[in-house]
Amino acid sequence: MTQQQYEECIKACLECMEACNVCFDACLEEDNVKMMADCIRLDRDCADLCGLAVKAMQTNSPAAKQILALCAEICERCGNECKKHDHDHCQKCAEACFKCAEVCRSTAA
Amino acid sequence: MTQQQYEECIKACLECMEACNVCFDACLEEDNVKMMADCIRLDRDCADLCGLAVKAMQTNSPAAKQILALCAEICERCGNECKKHDHDHCQKCAEACFKCAEVCRSTAA
Amino acid sequence: MTQQQYEECIKACLECMEACNVCFDACLEEDNVKMMADCIRLDRDCADLCGLAVKAMQTNSPAAKQILALCAEICERCGNECKKHDHDHCQKCAEACFKCAEVCRSTAA
Amino acid sequence: MTQQQYEECIKACLECMEACNVCFDACLEEDNVKMMADCIRLDRDCADLCGLAVKAMQTNSPAAKQILALCAEICERCGNECKKHDHDHCQKCAEACFKCAEVCRSTAA
Repeated sequence: MTQQQYEECIKACLECMEACNVCFDACLEEDNVKMMADCIRLDRDCADLCGLAVKAMQTNSPAAKQILALCAEICERCGNECKKHDHDHCQKCAEACFKCAEVCRSTAA
Repeated sequence: MTQQQYEECIKACLECMEACNVCFDACLEEDNVKMMADCIRLDRDCADLCGLAVKAMQTNSPAAKQILALCAEICERCGNECKKHDHDHCQKCAEACFKCAEVCRSTAA
Repeated sequence: MTQQQYEECIKACLECMEACNVCFDACLEEDNVKMMADCIRLDRDCADLCGLAVKAMQTNSPAAKQILALCAEICERCGNECKKHDHDHCQKCAEACFKCAEVCRSTAA
Repeated sequence: MTQQQYEECIKACLECMEACNVCFDACLEEDNVKMMADCIRLDRDCADLCGLAVKAMQTNSPAAKQILALCAEICERCGNECKKHDHDHCQKCAEACFKCAEVCRSTAA
């Protein structure tokens, strides 16, 4: 695949990475941080995976498709945790995660 | 600083990260890879630093400004190496590096 | 799993990460860098994956097992490329990669 | 510098990275997570910086010394936050951070 064919997927990963990092920061500012512990963990994992996926696509890594397949799974998991919480940042993050999971899956296929 | 105030700098770092990763890939496809060795090294370092800087800004890290100051230095160095080479990907990368160095420096100030 | 149960796997990943980074550096110093291009790419990917796996284990990430499964695949691939080359750093890297792949696979099981 | 001259510093960074990642995980399991918010943030930043420093040394990056200088600053900051908290994982992390800051500073000098 070329950089261009990866374009949509790179965009989805960057948006998901941003949503996860913003959610990580915002969760740590909430009154009830304890309730957000799993969200904080998964936000970190998911942001890091999205970053790795972007790097793999931008460098045309031979392992890109395998990394995208894993990225889709982690996004799915992060989205499922985030959607449990009413905070705006969590709901936005869940949306970005599910979108990213879908695009990663179809790009990896 | 808020996410919004970081917006221009996040954009510059993401563009520089992409240019460096694309240049890394393209250098490895050149006929004379040996000549590109320093460029390949610095592309990796610079892309990783830009990624770290983006994460620091998106999470409102207390260390963001220090990370941006270092990012500016690495971008400068990578740009200086890239601009020595006539390849399109190197010239584009140099431009993205110098732009990013400038924005990081002013944001860190 | 606990940090302690991950101990052997963390050790294998750290050794593989080091071997890959050292091999990346040494490949770029070889006379025939062009021949090493795939090795250089995979060294970067594999070192980064090992680093991610270590982070996942050290933080007890809920996604650790999935990350280890992918790490095993990338290590396998990097080992297969490295073992084609006679350089000491490539042979050592191949050995570290295959060892790491094995430990990651059994830890993820 | 050679890999060998970096040996002590790589070891200190790996120990600090582990202490920070373990502290990140343990802070998220504490009863009063809110009180640990800054510690959680800095543990993530510091672990990531230590990882970057290790990569820079293992690949003989031309930017290694600059990265070590920043790593020392972040370790110092993380250690100062951690030492405020009585939890064993925080005290251990503070110790690893201060040790790492010292070694990074002398290696970068």
